[in-house]
Amino acid sequence: MSSTSERLRFCFFTSFAPGGAPGVMWDSPASRTFNYLDLDDWIALAKELERAKFDAFFWADHSSVHDVYRGTWETAVREAVQFPLGDPFTLSSALASSTQDLGFAFSANIIQDHPYTFARRLSTLDHLTKGRIAWNIVTSWQPSAWANLGRNVMGSHSERYLEAEEYLTVLYKLLEGSWEDGAVVRDMANRVYADVSKVRKINHIGHFYAVPGVHTNEPSPQRMPVLFQAGSSDVGRTFAARHAEAMFLAGTNARGVRAALDDMRRRLAGAGREASDLLPFLGQKFVVGSTEEEAKRKDREFEEYLSSETMLAFGSSTMGVDLSTVDVDTPIGELETQAVQGQFKALAEAAPDKSFTFRDVVMRMFSGRLVGTPEQIADAMQEWHDLGVKGINLGMVRGWDDIYDITQHVVPVLQARGLMQTDYSHGTFREKMFAGTPSDEGARINHRHPAARYRRHPAQPEGACWDGPGGDPLP
Amino acid sequence: MSSTSERLRFCFFTSFAPGGAPGVMWDSPASRTFNYLDLDDWIALAKELERAKFDAFFWADHSSVHDVYRGTWETAVREAVQFPLGDPFTLSSALASSTQDLGFAFSANIIQDHPYTFARRLSTLDHLTKGRIAWNIVTSWQPSAWANLGRNVMGSHSERYLEAEEYLTVLYKLLEGSWEDGAVVRDMANRVYADVSKVRKINHIGHFYAVPGVHTNEPSPQRMPVLFQAGSSDVGRTFAARHAEAMFLAGTNARGVRAALDDMRRRLAGAGREASDLLPFLGQKFVVGSTEEEAKRKDREFEEYLSSETMLAFGSSTMGVDLSTVDVDTPIGELETQAVQGQFKALAEAAPDKSFTFRDVVMRMFSGRLVGTPEQIADAMQEWHDLGVKGINLGMVRGWDDIYDITQHVVPVLQARGLMQTDYSHGTFREKMFAGTPSDEGARINHRHPAARYRRHPAQPEGACWDGPGGDPLP
Repeated sequence: MSSTSERLRFCFFTSFAPGGAPGVMWDSPASRTFNYLDLDDWIALAKELERAKFDAFFWADHSSVHDVYRGTWETAVREAVQFPLGDPFTLSSALASSTQDLGFAFSANIIQDHPYTFARRLSTLDHLTKGRIAWNIVTSWQPSAWANLGRNVMGSHSERYLEAEEYLTVLYKLLEGSWEDGAVVRDMANRVYADVSKVRKINHIGHFYAVPGVHTNEPSPQRMPVLFQAGSSDVGRTFAARHAEAMFLAGTNARGVRAALDDMRRRLAGAGREASDLLPFLGQKFVVGSTEEEAKRKDREFEEYLSSETMLAFGSSTMGVDLSTVDVDTPIGELETQAVQGQFKALAEAAPDKSFTFRDVVMRMFSGRLVGTPEQIADAMQEWHDLGVKGINLGMVRGWDDIYDITQHVVPVLQARGLMQTDYSHGTFREKMFAGTPSDEGARINHRHPAARYRRHPAQPEGACWDGPGGDPLP
Repeated sequence: MSSTSERLRFCFFTSFAPGGAPGVMWDSPASRTFNYLDLDDWIALAKELERAKFDAFFWADHSSVHDVYRGTWETAVREAVQFPLGDPFTLSSALASSTQDLGFAFSANIIQDHPYTFARRLSTLDHLTKGRIAWNIVTSWQPSAWANLGRNVMGSHSERYLEAEEYLTVLYKLLEGSWEDGAVVRDMANRVYADVSKVRKINHIGHFYAVPGVHTNEPSPQRMPVLFQAGSSDVGRTFAARHAEAMFLAGTNARGVRAALDDMRRRLAGAGREASDLLPFLGQKFVVGSTEEEAKRKDREFEEYLSSETMLAFGSSTMGVDLSTVDVDTPIGELETQAVQGQFKALAEAAPDKSFTFRDVVMRMFSGRLVGTPEQIADAMQEWHDLGVKGINLGMVRGWDDIYDITQHVVPVLQARGLMQTDYSHGTFREKMFAGTPSDEGARINHRHPAARYRRHPAQPEGACWDGPGGDPLP
């Protein structure tokens, strides 16, 4: 056990779907205790997470159905692969009054809401939760989501990031720039609710959006919610370095994680931000037993439940390749050369050796988990911590009962080692996340973040600096 | 006191804004007890409404700022005229766990959300509230809302209703048609969550929207939430007769209300629906005193607080005419003939006599209220009831304390007369609203409603009947 200067942050990562995340079987004995459509069950889970001092609930999301595998949604619908899928923003609001400190981090892609509407919803929920929300920025990678939302052709990877850049700019202008500090005066004697001279149009005219403003809400505790992002491509990492306050790191071993951390530090410096301005998170799943034997037994039960069809449907959709078009049951070493080139090359290279089949690789990629005693799991967390990881997105494996295994058996060990908080810090989710770090500047977004450049100052005439396309303010 | 065969339904009508509705002063002593940004205050109010057996909270909404008067939002921002304005859908969700029976009726205009996204949110919230939601359909009448949402030119009145018609068609297909009854099987032994043959695309291709589907959510208790609408124009009333299950009636006197009721009965028959399929609501505001003297004293206090500038800003926006361009302080009888023609003609005709100024007319139009003892107020409700009105949308006058005046003093009198329920009926909001009426068919929308025509039957091949523009199914 080593002393730790900075705790790890822990989010409980799931989906608003039967069983939760894909691969967590809605039909496992543990899942049968939980009905994802029942608010009372979610409230009980939120209270347990708060009791254990988790930082946040975190919901993955998409806005269509996993329909790439075999060119159909059949597997997704039959086996409930992250489907049906409720809206996590709405669930976050429904949970607001049942907890006091737990954060709510929801994914939402930029094509499902116009930024003017989305800004209004963010402000509303940040008020109602007293500043406990985070948004995971997603650029939507599903062609069927684009089609359903009236966008006939999905933008290319880089086009989607261009649009996301402008989407964020509109949000920054509305949330940070439309209402100056001190605009709300609530002067009852003179019947002045807000000082008109401090409330302004944003006059955004860009490539994707034209939004005159004004923002419909008075400033909420955080103004801009805490921003999460998960970029693994070059353009995605650059985007994260510019905009994210927390991000999911790709990487499953120490070498890969160290490389990703080094890479992000360089990119942050390039974006004029400090390394401490961005909290790198790793995704992790645990199977816990009071002995190693018990953990392994539980894991074997999980193996029996796990459906590789579910994983092929999920993997096809998230990787954008139809895994039914390749032989998934022959060892990669025995496949024709052309079968492991092109779109399947990266997947073939992810195989530890050539005796693996594509099915094996997908299973390994999407159902990896740590199996062991609370002490063994804490040892692994310590290693990530010492590498520079700042938070863990903790996923379920066997079903909803997993979380009680973790809160009751793993959390006390993590807390005893100083790896997990034993109480919440004061204030908003941003204050809690950055408390004790060099980047802590209170409830509002850090001054080095690009959103901060849209803050209004009394000297700026209305619209004077935001008229150009792209919308960067003049220096 | 007369016996009543059918109770009145009561919604508490407000906005998610300082003070609530326009004209309810955020700076009145009663308002000072309530912070519209504090969820705890809303929860306390919801619990009080449920204790008193109100049917629902009802939030008006718009998605911009009242900026027609003087061509600026200055009055709206300074005097907090329904601004700033939180999102009532988000608030509905935040209140879901604090009550068991109270309904949540929120306004939402059709330009702020794509119907595919909106359908997902409706299903999510209907699940989380166990079927307690209603949607008030709004076509957005604010040019600045259109501009902010990337729609440069606001559609004409009839174009907006055409778009609303198609918007609803997409929702009906998604919510009623995409998942057949019995599609969700949750067969754990065979790992079948849903029967793929009963989950279908909607293949909507219309003038405004193209939505392939599938709907992202399994069917919620009500599927389609209860539909409210407030159409006063010819096209609006026709729309309401076709789609609404409850509507706001225009009319402030018995003659006008009777005429509106007769007109709606004719239109309902033309739409193939029964008169009992639509519940007509009236908006009403009360100032209550234990004696007539006390009520009048309270009303004089209200008069002192009331700002006619607030009313001119609100009236200009909702009527789409800038009241700063006309002389609002000269009696209408003394104005030039041309000043009372054109866009101001209807307002001039609303004056009881020609000694009224436009300011007087606007004040009368938007701050009308009943002033009296609980018994006097119950007498007035009895009259509406006997005319055929089925529900009251109850607005505040003096501020948040009004509601306690009403729940503590007026509600017991209404209940004693059989005008208000003394307990909730079983089931969803739709079941509660229609319990004991000839139109009660349970949680799902009535079979005569156009939405019912999109219900799937096993014999229909996928997409076979929904391929045409406009999307009506074949007979």
